[in-house]
Amino acid sequence: MCSHKVVGIDALCLSKDGRAVVIIDQTKLPTEQVHLTLSTSQELYDAIAKLQVRGAPAIGVFAAYAYYVLAIQAAEDTSSYQEFERRMAGEKDFLNSSRPTAYNLSWALERMDACTHAHAADSQDALLDALLHECQAIHQEDLEMSQAISAAGASLIKDGDGILTHCNAGPLACLGYGTGQGPLYYAHEQGKRIHVFADETRPLLQGARLTSLELSRAGIDVTLICDNMASLVMKNGWVQACMVGCDRVAMNGDVANKIGTSGVAILAKHYHIPFYVLGPTSTIDRACKTGDDITIEERAGDEIKTMWYEKPMAPAEVACFNPAFDVTDHSLIDAIITERGIARPPYETSLAALFDGDEA
Amino acid sequence: MCSHKVVGIDALCLSKDGRAVVIIDQTKLPTEQVHLTLSTSQELYDAIAKLQVRGAPAIGVFAAYAYYVLAIQAAEDTSSYQEFERRMAGEKDFLNSSRPTAYNLSWALERMDACTHAHAADSQDALLDALLHECQAIHQEDLEMSQAISAAGASLIKDGDGILTHCNAGPLACLGYGTGQGPLYYAHEQGKRIHVFADETRPLLQGARLTSLELSRAGIDVTLICDNMASLVMKNGWVQACMVGCDRVAMNGDVANKIGTSGVAILAKHYHIPFYVLGPTSTIDRACKTGDDITIEERAGDEIKTMWYEKPMAPAEVACFNPAFDVTDHSLIDAIITERGIARPPYETSLAALFDGDEA
Repeated sequence: MCSHKVVGIDALCLSKDGRAVVIIDQTKLPTEQVHLTLSTSQELYDAIAKLQVRGAPAIGVFAAYAYYVLAIQAAEDTSSYQEFERRMAGEKDFLNSSRPTAYNLSWALERMDACTHAHAADSQDALLDALLHECQAIHQEDLEMSQAISAAGASLIKDGDGILTHCNAGPLACLGYGTGQGPLYYAHEQGKRIHVFADETRPLLQGARLTSLELSRAGIDVTLICDNMASLVMKNGWVQACMVGCDRVAMNGDVANKIGTSGVAILAKHYHIPFYVLGPTSTIDRACKTGDDITIEERAGDEIKTMWYEKPMAPAEVACFNPAFDVTDHSLIDAIITERGIARPPYETSLAALFDGDEA
Repeated sequence: MCSHKVVGIDALCLSKDGRAVVIIDQTKLPTEQVHLTLSTSQELYDAIAKLQVRGAPAIGVFAAYAYYVLAIQAAEDTSSYQEFERRMAGEKDFLNSSRPTAYNLSWALERMDACTHAHAADSQDALLDALLHECQAIHQEDLEMSQAISAAGASLIKDGDGILTHCNAGPLACLGYGTGQGPLYYAHEQGKRIHVFADETRPLLQGARLTSLELSRAGIDVTLICDNMASLVMKNGWVQACMVGCDRVAMNGDVANKIGTSGVAILAKHYHIPFYVLGPTSTIDRACKTGDDITIEERAGDEIKTMWYEKPMAPAEVACFNPAFDVTDHSLIDAIITERGIARPPYETSLAALFDGDEA
């Protein structure tokens, strides 16, 4: 269930000697497969900041390995636990500032930090062993989460179905099968014949560059379309379900995800096609009542006007609006699929039920 | 009302000696203003097929001029009316095969052909004079049509409105003010403050390259967005009306227009925003009962994968579906605005009424 088993490309792993994190540079895909071996604070920070590693779950696992790699160096350079702890606190804060809004990043780093503190009284070797175990556990739990989401999602896919997906939440971004696209790989391995339509996902083209690459590598029948072709593809009767990932889920079922997701959901409703959101329960923000509480990141207009082009494809003087996400209203969503099960409307009760027994 | 009066760029004209059609190469905009002087069948065919000239009304006027230019050559090369007529029948069929969906193309060519037949008994000079007069009349009628549509459409725009538009049906595509975007220029000249959101319109980016260029040249407040951002812009309450052009209108009000139009219409309906289609009555195909009768042009996947990019932005092996148009259901359209007036549902009667008094 490692990403290389699914699509032939391994998103990230610890190097054999445990002194570096090896990743595939996602910014170079699909034209080049460049592996990066990263061991310094700055290299590890840059990999996140420059989106060489991306996708919330992958960033979390990467950060845990990065913490471990830096801990080995810190152990060699320091002579007391206090000195080691001070240095690692600095490393943690630095890594955490690479993309301050990514929840999995701080979550994984806090967990590694807690492990350090829990083993303060142990020998240096025992402490490093504990940290290695912890980052491997984070990776393993991520794979199990992805597997559980994918299995649940695949239960909604029938043999012969056409599935439309948007953006990228597959093996590279989420490890294992992925989340938003995880059920596609799972259903394919179950022997179901599926046909996938991948929205290219402007302006950053994650669908064109990553999703279509991953799916075709896995031997899944995939057709790339521009975002504005989804309506026609649905009208033609080629889509039996839509599946997307999520960046944040409010407790009423409103979902923030890649820009354009809400449009896909409205089209799906119009054409009476079920619309499914997939993600781990860690994406459900229990402090967030509705989508109105979610701030939408706005990015530079140059991503639209010049980013991929040999020459500007729009007049330089023209203003752009470039939101990175939108919020899909819960009324448009048929189910939210997590590693703990499938939530259906009304989401106020079904999402809350996923946390039954957890600490508040 | 020539296009250069509105936006400072002239879309097309007959050369001074009448032996060529001069166009601005719309594929090179906005970075280069390249004029092409076209006189052979192949050049004239290619200009349409390669979208160097585009927009249904502009294609119609262009085809009429092209027919005239080829008629001069045919008159020189042939020694009898029968021979001339046979050659022009071939030229007409060839030009007509350059793009399948645009109705104005065949409409203008049929009109030139009818003119040829009407002057079968005249001298060659008189026949050519009649053809020159006919293509100039088509151009002039087109400018008047555009003016009338723009005035009617502007009557639906209030001071302070936000208008979302898709693709390009402005001064370059339609001459004069244009059709789909014509009311924007007209309303602006009336002193109404408007704010326009221009969909970039993948894969050929007519909105980014042409519409945003034209509107900003005319001093109109325009914001460029990716197609998949329309839903968020509408949700934010920034859009009071959608206005688009059309390539072919069926008698039940179904409308073929640039790919993505049907998606915009579905979003507009969802957000309770009026959706208006603008075009000349020549775009209404009286032989076409519903949208099901309209053939959708499918174009090469490379337009999606490699056309604008320094390097391929999708894996070469991935299949693409690249329809150039879609059909918007009449139930999603609040009005169809023509030079003869505004048709409202039910379109079976309102569209038919536009032709009252015409020959069948």
